[in-house]
Amino acid sequence: MISAEILSVGTELLLGDIVNTDAAFISKKLAELGIPLYHQSVVGDNAERLEAAVKDALGRADILIMTGGLGPTCDDITKNIVANVFDLPLELCEEAAGDIKSYFDDIGRPMTENNLSQAMLPRGSVALKNNHGTAPGVLLKGKILGIDGEKTVIMLPGPPRELEPMFNESVLPYLREKSPYTFFSLNLHLYGIGESAAETVLRDIMSESENPTVAPYAAEAEVRVRITARGSSREECLTLCREMAEKIRTTEIAGYVFAESTSDDESSEVLVRHVIGMLRERSMTVGTAESCTAGMIASKIGDIPGCSDVLMGGVVSYANEVKTGVLGVPDEILKQYGAVSEECARYMAEGVRRVLGCDVAVSVTGVAGPGGGTPDKPVGTVCFGVSDRNGTVTSTEQFGSKKDRGKIRRFTTSAALMKIVKRLREN
Amino acid sequence: MISAEILSVGTELLLGDIVNTDAAFISKKLAELGIPLYHQSVVGDNAERLEAAVKDALGRADILIMTGGLGPTCDDITKNIVANVFDLPLELCEEAAGDIKSYFDDIGRPMTENNLSQAMLPRGSVALKNNHGTAPGVLLKGKILGIDGEKTVIMLPGPPRELEPMFNESVLPYLREKSPYTFFSLNLHLYGIGESAAETVLRDIMSESENPTVAPYAAEAEVRVRITARGSSREECLTLCREMAEKIRTTEIAGYVFAESTSDDESSEVLVRHVIGMLRERSMTVGTAESCTAGMIASKIGDIPGCSDVLMGGVVSYANEVKTGVLGVPDEILKQYGAVSEECARYMAEGVRRVLGCDVAVSVTGVAGPGGGTPDKPVGTVCFGVSDRNGTVTSTEQFGSKKDRGKIRRFTTSAALMKIVKRLREN
Repeated sequence: MISAEILSVGTELLLGDIVNTDAAFISKKLAELGIPLYHQSVVGDNAERLEAAVKDALGRADILIMTGGLGPTCDDITKNIVANVFDLPLELCEEAAGDIKSYFDDIGRPMTENNLSQAMLPRGSVALKNNHGTAPGVLLKGKILGIDGEKTVIMLPGPPRELEPMFNESVLPYLREKSPYTFFSLNLHLYGIGESAAETVLRDIMSESENPTVAPYAAEAEVRVRITARGSSREECLTLCREMAEKIRTTEIAGYVFAESTSDDESSEVLVRHVIGMLRERSMTVGTAESCTAGMIASKIGDIPGCSDVLMGGVVSYANEVKTGVLGVPDEILKQYGAVSEECARYMAEGVRRVLGCDVAVSVTGVAGPGGGTPDKPVGTVCFGVSDRNGTVTSTEQFGSKKDRGKIRRFTTSAALMKIVKRLREN
Repeated sequence: MISAEILSVGTELLLGDIVNTDAAFISKKLAELGIPLYHQSVVGDNAERLEAAVKDALGRADILIMTGGLGPTCDDITKNIVANVFDLPLELCEEAAGDIKSYFDDIGRPMTENNLSQAMLPRGSVALKNNHGTAPGVLLKGKILGIDGEKTVIMLPGPPRELEPMFNESVLPYLREKSPYTFFSLNLHLYGIGESAAETVLRDIMSESENPTVAPYAAEAEVRVRITARGSSREECLTLCREMAEKIRTTEIAGYVFAESTSDDESSEVLVRHVIGMLRERSMTVGTAESCTAGMIASKIGDIPGCSDVLMGGVVSYANEVKTGVLGVPDEILKQYGAVSEECARYMAEGVRRVLGCDVAVSVTGVAGPGGGTPDKPVGTVCFGVSDRNGTVTSTEQFGSKKDRGKIRRFTTSAALMKIVKRLREN
């Protein structure tokens, strides 16, 4: 079984000026191909350390994918170092030189001499076309003194808009031939149970299962159980995952599952897409009345393209005057119970449903902190209302008095979406 | 001179499910402290490979900062491996156990037995308080058989919302004492000029300056000029930075500066804090009327603690029925000019100012994409209105038809805040 490793080159990564999205992108692709990846590393533009890192990586893995250090300036040393390690000279690649020249013709700027250095490749390597920049990628296969076996090094430019298309167009077809397996994940999204409680329920299943594997992990305001299968095709993997999901759904976990997603989905959007899907199936529109979230729930729904067939809008009633004046919350309710109360949440939800004319409305009013907490209603207390033609239900959650404002508001947003799901399921 | 290294532990990083923002965050902090960092690495939850990676790293660096693998489940092995490397047993830390218990009391969920495993630390280590989750951090100093010198390992939880405050509260003060220098940055925040145009103006200053250094860089919807000084104290650095800022303000850059921030500030909040500050100075309240941003502008203001003295609220008028019914945009305006028009933006801003009774209102209506673009109004076209007692101004921006929906909505949010700044300055 071949294995791969990623080595990113760039002082800007070591300074924290940029985040290593290239490594995440390539890792995801390797996982989909079923090519094991056990290490990612980052080093700067230093010849000695880079050479040591290349040798270390090739001592462990068969395929080394390098990113960065292919630019035209003198601190771009990736190709020189790799050529050294393989004991090969750099030579001008005519095809790559031609591509660089036409790139500059195309954007109408003169080519400087140092751009041609980008067409200097280790002897015997293959240039990978760069359709979005000047630096060609490089694929080199060969043997290295002191290391067993044939090794492959794939060098890619650092900027994601150059690397990603080059990877998809040139590297993916090459790697696909090397991969014996496909990996595929199915996620069960849970709400209302913690990661460790989920693990306690699933412990036996987890320890029995090798393919697919089962692991719970915590995400914002939800817990996911990830089922990952290895197989010869996507279909085979999906079948294995589905069987395991059924098995898990025979445990008490079943009561907490609100959605499923696959490794193709953007997982932070699963809940909101699920809400939109449920509303769309029922031809229902939604609106929000938001105090402490101040528009975050509506905005979260607005994140999803095509939300306009379900999202009417909302009222951000941060000030009490807006709760009373726009949403019609009676003054006495605010006086008697306070703005953070289920009574107020009820009037907010009913008010916004009336004002916007939407089918279902959700309201939130809470103490996001850091100030404003009282012994009765500490920071993290949030009241919710959901109103539809069948009436209005209210509830209160305590998200933790030590959580920061941002976290409380994001948890509130997820919980509000979840409360819409529950209401729609009941009716 | 001591050096540091970062080792992140997590199969989800190797699968590409998450991006290693922790490494970027820590790297940036180390750069500010002047502590050299030459390697970042990632390995999975595999005991053998993790142990080898810890030993490799401690063979190269004095301080190893590890992230991840501190959770309550059996594949969280960071502490066990580090204890092995230092040849120390794990022992229950009573203080950490007490913190975990009160965390669960606070959120009102039962603690399971495996959560207590998070309080098992290598003998002699110091627990670092986690104010945002259950896993304490760990700081361990000691000697390792076969490696020269005293080594320090700092283990931090993987979730950024736990790691970042823990780093700032517990790790930073510790590292500051190890650093011979202080680094400090002052940012000038610019609006209305591009990164390369700013660089052209500043080229001479940039090439002349070694301490402080000057570099422009592009951030979301704004450009920043970062001035970074190295010195023996924060005060010395601040003086150097201020002198350079004055020098830069003698160039034409001065006309584009809207705010200053330091490396201590959360830079994504500079603009919104500036808006809130200007409103507060003037004792003015604000409201929003949002179509394509669907509440993001109000929510952004709501991010800031204490915003309640200026934020009245807003109306999310995603559907045209809300634009007409709640905000009073005339039907003829929508028919004649369309919802994405300065005419509609004008009525939205005036309408929300009337409905909420706020002093200044901002409105946005645009095409966030990916669908909905026309030749006249392609994706990325956004119309703005700002209304106050002196009247209403409108404008149109084109944020780029190839940008994704999220980016267009975030750019729109920043631009809306900037338009409030301009309006307040003019009056």
